[in-house]
Amino acid sequence: MNKVLAPLEPGSTIGILGGGQLGRMLALAAARLGFSVHVFCPDENSPAFKVAEKSYLFDYDDEKALGRFAQATDIITYEFENVPAHTAAYLSAKTALHPNAGALKIAQDRLAEREFLTSTDIAIAPYAGISRVDDIEKALAEISTPAVLKASRMGYDGKGQAVIKTFDDIPGAWEKIGCVAAIVEAFIPFEREISVIIARSQSGEMVAFDPGENKHVNHILDQTLVPANISDATHHAALKIARTIADALDYVGILAVELFVCNAPGYEPLYVNEIAPRVHNSGHWTQDACHTDQFEQHIRAICGWPLGAAHRHSDAVMKNLIGDDYYQWPKFAALGNHNVHLYGKTKVREGRKMGHVNQTKPHKKAT
Amino acid sequence: MNKVLAPLEPGSTIGILGGGQLGRMLALAAARLGFSVHVFCPDENSPAFKVAEKSYLFDYDDEKALGRFAQATDIITYEFENVPAHTAAYLSAKTALHPNAGALKIAQDRLAEREFLTSTDIAIAPYAGISRVDDIEKALAEISTPAVLKASRMGYDGKGQAVIKTFDDIPGAWEKIGCVAAIVEAFIPFEREISVIIARSQSGEMVAFDPGENKHVNHILDQTLVPANISDATHHAALKIARTIADALDYVGILAVELFVCNAPGYEPLYVNEIAPRVHNSGHWTQDACHTDQFEQHIRAICGWPLGAAHRHSDAVMKNLIGDDYYQWPKFAALGNHNVHLYGKTKVREGRKMGHVNQTKPHKKAT
Repeated sequence: MNKVLAPLEPGSTIGILGGGQLGRMLALAAARLGFSVHVFCPDENSPAFKVAEKSYLFDYDDEKALGRFAQATDIITYEFENVPAHTAAYLSAKTALHPNAGALKIAQDRLAEREFLTSTDIAIAPYAGISRVDDIEKALAEISTPAVLKASRMGYDGKGQAVIKTFDDIPGAWEKIGCVAAIVEAFIPFEREISVIIARSQSGEMVAFDPGENKHVNHILDQTLVPANISDATHHAALKIARTIADALDYVGILAVELFVCNAPGYEPLYVNEIAPRVHNSGHWTQDACHTDQFEQHIRAICGWPLGAAHRHSDAVMKNLIGDDYYQWPKFAALGNHNVHLYGKTKVREGRKMGHVNQTKPHKKAT
Repeated sequence: MNKVLAPLEPGSTIGILGGGQLGRMLALAAARLGFSVHVFCPDENSPAFKVAEKSYLFDYDDEKALGRFAQATDIITYEFENVPAHTAAYLSAKTALHPNAGALKIAQDRLAEREFLTSTDIAIAPYAGISRVDDIEKALAEISTPAVLKASRMGYDGKGQAVIKTFDDIPGAWEKIGCVAAIVEAFIPFEREISVIIARSQSGEMVAFDPGENKHVNHILDQTLVPANISDATHHAALKIARTIADALDYVGILAVELFVCNAPGYEPLYVNEIAPRVHNSGHWTQDACHTDQFEQHIRAICGWPLGAAHRHSDAVMKNLIGDDYYQWPKFAALGNHNVHLYGKTKVREGRKMGHVNQTKPHKKAT
């Protein structure tokens, strides 16, 4: 159980591990509330460095630097789930790290994540842990094809995944993911993917945003549409799943839960695809469509503040600007009902997230 | 006439003169659009330093430092109208300074401001320029009492002002403002004060926010209420005045126009009280109630971007947190329909602006 502490005073210093766009937007939200921000990242071109009071350009295993970082900050959070376990352990021993190292451990290992979700009775695709290529055939004898092989660690944006349509695909799939520890799971014939972005405070208070519907292109998130095209019952079921997960992890901060929505007679079965212990790309729409956005909610939660209102004053379509999409910024900047967010990255590269655009439309029905 | 240049690319660097809360909020808005920000300010405790890529801690007359600042930035703006004239001239000769030095010159001298407004046929209180105490009596023979004596330069939040109820008050009033160049003007028996915050782009495009109604306590802005309690005709007349002023100054950026609203049979006469060539405290409500806020509009305008939509999706009450009000932040942070903005100032002092709170209420009638 997290100790409920007095709220962290404005003027205190928040440390952020990771200097990408999520760290940058967390830093901007923290600044709005009067906090100072220090950013720790081994990449000298970190966009978050440019809006932070202090930057730490060191490797994540540099304990001396981590020690100074912990000393100079009042609380530490992170923008990515692949924080090395020993880094999280080292920092947790010295200061308050939110979300906690346990949540991080589960979120960075697909097998641990699946075992955790199974323990909470939340529906997921049938799966099996894989250590060697032989395990795959054995597992698929039960799970059957089509199936997906997913590396246990460091997968994102479709990386570290391979589809297995027939047993003949097994050797190639195992090669493709790099012959590493993995899971194999049944392919879920879903109608759509949705995300629930939920904030949980130190006292266990939870506030969820309305589910968004995710559209991918080349395995990378392209758009999030809100409201999602789901029934009210599915909406509430999705929120309940997110609350169950956040409670089970004794979670503090923003948690993202990706779910597959299927189609069955009379209802929409839900399967959790993935959880992310951080602010999430599929929550960027909240910046311009909600009273309090995901970044401020995360800062409020980790600082022991009450959570903000998450109600949605507008419908929204978030569109990522990936690679060359970036050059479309003048078009979006000229559209009246769009808010442009650019990350200050110096180089455009294929597949690189350069910014996003939120198209909003005020709606009359408060949520 | 301003040269219309190609829009400044995201990733470019914006220089801001002045490191207070307005500079800080401008820097945050610039970062959202992908810009880097350098801040120049002689105060080492500048809140804007903490969110800037680079800080210049030098006096405004340090030409070497100003030269480096101009060299390192692509465009320069400012957060306060009392930028010394020679600083503005020095920078204007080296780089693009917005709003232009002419607007700055008029806004930092009440006599020049009154003469400029008179030249545009905009209604202001009857006034006269004052160089010596004897001038006051002469002027009041025409203007009559009650009147207000206002130092021409460096006045803000009621400082440098003295009310003259009878001729006997003249010597005391002259003392009070420090026996400096001034104007004396007729006291306008106004019903309310409103502000129009207007953005003007390099191409002359203008977008105005809905007028806000200002409530002062101890001569310092306490609250801005939107919508203002004025007729539609007055609303449009106020916007027309703001547009006239912005055009006459060939202005680029956010301009604030404070107006007195009077009560006459069948209409509400308007008198311009003051103009400010910058983002303004009475425009802070736009952060949480409008599609694009005053800070982003200013950045868009000075960078040659198209202006954003200024429509108001919510009604708003902005409340300043001044001095000890600051300690009420936990109360406001816990209220669902309030957004808290704190400036990261390290010391609470009487009369010091520490933050503000925007209370919003979504409304159905789009503006």
